[in-house]
Amino acid sequence: MEEKKAVTLEDIQQAAERIRPYVRRTPLLREKSMDEFLGCEVYVKPEMLQITGAFKLRGAMSKIMSLTEEERQRGIITSSSGNHGQACAYAGQLLGIPVTVIVPEDTPHLKVNNARRMGANVILWDRLYVKRWEKVHEEVAAHGYTIVHPYEDPMVMAGQGTIALEVLEDLPELDTIVVPVGGGGLISGISTYIKSVKPSIRVIGIQAEGNDSYVQSRKAGKVVEAPCTPTVADGLSCRRPGNNPFPIIEKNVDELISVTEEEILKATKLLAQEAKVVGEPSACVGVAAAMAHKIQIKPGEKVCFVLTSGNWDIDLLGKIYNDMPVPAVN
Amino acid sequence: MEEKKAVTLEDIQQAAERIRPYVRRTPLLREKSMDEFLGCEVYVKPEMLQITGAFKLRGAMSKIMSLTEEERQRGIITSSSGNHGQACAYAGQLLGIPVTVIVPEDTPHLKVNNARRMGANVILWDRLYVKRWEKVHEEVAAHGYTIVHPYEDPMVMAGQGTIALEVLEDLPELDTIVVPVGGGGLISGISTYIKSVKPSIRVIGIQAEGNDSYVQSRKAGKVVEAPCTPTVADGLSCRRPGNNPFPIIEKNVDELISVTEEEILKATKLLAQEAKVVGEPSACVGVAAAMAHKIQIKPGEKVCFVLTSGNWDIDLLGKIYNDMPVPAVN
Repeated sequence: MEEKKAVTLEDIQQAAERIRPYVRRTPLLREKSMDEFLGCEVYVKPEMLQITGAFKLRGAMSKIMSLTEEERQRGIITSSSGNHGQACAYAGQLLGIPVTVIVPEDTPHLKVNNARRMGANVILWDRLYVKRWEKVHEEVAAHGYTIVHPYEDPMVMAGQGTIALEVLEDLPELDTIVVPVGGGGLISGISTYIKSVKPSIRVIGIQAEGNDSYVQSRKAGKVVEAPCTPTVADGLSCRRPGNNPFPIIEKNVDELISVTEEEILKATKLLAQEAKVVGEPSACVGVAAAMAHKIQIKPGEKVCFVLTSGNWDIDLLGKIYNDMPVPAVN
Repeated sequence: MEEKKAVTLEDIQQAAERIRPYVRRTPLLREKSMDEFLGCEVYVKPEMLQITGAFKLRGAMSKIMSLTEEERQRGIITSSSGNHGQACAYAGQLLGIPVTVIVPEDTPHLKVNNARRMGANVILWDRLYVKRWEKVHEEVAAHGYTIVHPYEDPMVMAGQGTIALEVLEDLPELDTIVVPVGGGGLISGISTYIKSVKPSIRVIGIQAEGNDSYVQSRKAGKVVEAPCTPTVADGLSCRRPGNNPFPIIEKNVDELISVTEEEILKATKLLAQEAKVVGEPSACVGVAAAMAHKIQIKPGEKVCFVLTSGNWDIDLLGKIYNDMPVPAVN
């Protein structure tokens, strides 16, 4: 078995320098009006305000800017119909490098077209994760592309970790940071930075119930698969923890918690109402956990909720805000 | 007749210093994905992310911090059931000074309770603007309060003008700024700053059709009343231009334009979809005007849309995002 690849404090510090010209430094917002709902001193890091509407641009840019000029000219490839794929397409367009994205054949037209409008070569392929990554490797063999994996790549994790660097610059007295967990790249970067710099800060990861492979794997003491039940937090679906993120998360993340669909919907609405930002349900699982009293927090504790993204159908978000039923997605 | 009171560049620069510890410096966001909808290079100044969810805190703080300690201890008073009243209540709570707010007797309980929770003395009074301000003056005579008028007061205008100061610091090459117009305090401050510092920048004011007393007054060449038709942009309702703002606006504002209800609803949805921020309809009239091609703008022109606020019923906003009918408010 291949050796696990980790990310280091230095990787994250260097990533911050590399990506600075290309990403937005999102503000850290103190949300006093949410204190009574969440039972702590609430801060949010609104990455839906990031360019492309999600934190994913940080990781994609970190990886791409770590490549040689020659590697960049050959092009990059990934498999993601979601925010990571859009971030790669955007970065490719901006930097003038070829981007290939392998997506499930049932990906909504809108997402396919978005990526194509940004110049990406979008290939519709199998629904199965494993089959799509086989296709990625075929394309790499044929064209010499570099893979930009959404969560296995340490340079991608390093980019995501820059969120923690910014949060601590703005609020050195932070007590706790709460992070949505899908593939695990984001929390790998964030927890590595936090535990390297100030280990007393708690790092808490949140997943959606029925999609909580990290929660299940921690219980089992090893990587196990979890069912991918349809969920409104579709951006976090991940059947099996990543090889590289899993040991990092086991080492650095203090707690892993899962939340229900109803808890997620309530949090999605609360965030729009109080913080005035549009978060997709995946972005709101941390707020959901605190609202449901699933995180042990004290009044006065300074807690930062990382809000990952806001790229969801606005008509469906409207339904959530209006307390109407919305469909879960597999 | 009383002499008109104007606001100066120095007032705005001094206000910026006074309010700095108390207000959030909102980011200027480049919204590339909106370019194709609006036909220019789009920037937004998202004041729904301001503390209290609206720009109004700038003006209220500017006024309050210009008072003597003794005046502050006597207390302040205003009449506003909306964002200005909330901002005064918040400022009073923060600084420990007494705040009285006179509101129409049919003000929703939620708003009354919000202000009371922040410690304000809320007095329910007549629906008529003139009657409420009579009550304000009675209270002033009885208690020695200082009036914090939402748009007639130059110190309030100066606070609102700090938005322009921040925008120009972030984007000195700005071509055009588009500003919602209600009572006129915001655009008085912004246009004074812009025309003092870089008069080539266009300042454009936007109102809701059927509530466009500034548009009508400019046509008439003098202050005229306009009907207050029920509108989703209820935050901008103002039957008659302010005595002090009117001459400032006539001098400094290049164009005044009105938009329809349908145009406002479309813009409200577009902003949530693309910029991932929750704007109340009043905040979105500028985007509405550009979307409806009512502003002459060129591709590549750098245009900043001031997004004033996000304090609206989230259930109703959900309806807008879901393309359902929403009621207009008088």
